[in-house]
Amino acid sequence: MPFDPASLKYDPNGLIPCIAQDHASGEVLMMAWMNPDAVAQTLATGRVTYWSRSRQGFWIKGETSGHIQRLVELRVDCDRDCLLVLVDQTGPACHTNRRSCFFTSIGMQGETVLSEPVA
Amino acid sequence: MPFDPASLKYDPNGLIPCIAQDHASGEVLMMAWMNPDAVAQTLATGRVTYWSRSRQGFWIKGETSGHIQRLVELRVDCDRDCLLVLVDQTGPACHTNRRSCFFTSIGMQGETVLSEPVA
Repeated sequence: MPFDPASLKYDPNGLIPCIAQDHASGEVLMMAWMNPDAVAQTLATGRVTYWSRSRQGFWIKGETSGHIQRLVELRVDCDRDCLLVLVDQTGPACHTNRRSCFFTSIGMQGETVLSEPVA
Repeated sequence: MPFDPASLKYDPNGLIPCIAQDHASGEVLMMAWMNPDAVAQTLATGRVTYWSRSRQGFWIKGETSGHIQRLVELRVDCDRDCLLVLVDQTGPACHTNRRSCFFTSIGMQGETVLSEPVA
């Protein structure tokens, strides 16, 4: 039976969170949002495509930066309200030019930056 | 400067998504939500504590099941609107008794279950 994006659970804005993970290293790169069309487009093109909440439009990851995400595998969680994409990431995933968006460690005493932007 | 949970960005419901990742294997285990008090409690106790949207109360992961998550490290992303917890997970993280909630692979032609519940 073909997969139907409408079978996932979306929030009141019609969006579902999607975690992007490097398929080779296991590093969690970023989290962004998809709507049903972005899910369908990601599967159809093999290029990870989010829904930009700020621009209210499709966000084909890397379309302007070249830092594309090739889809390796799409997974859904037990509640069908969160996605995980395993990706082949070209260059940095973060707009700060770091590999991962999760570059800040938090402790009770404060925050520590774990990585610097790539040159 | 001590970390202030109010410095994170919460959604209109006062919640921030939190991805849990196995600190040793890198496996993404689950995604759940925290409010500022859950963030503070997680840091203070070292036991990962979410906010249950269905029960509208704290959800100290594993409190009833024993499948606790010991906090190894808390990270925040560049936009400060998503958290990543690296955890030491006891037993399965998923309520279906699987290690990870992301046990279903999606392709255009349908879905594939990748793992079975542990006995």
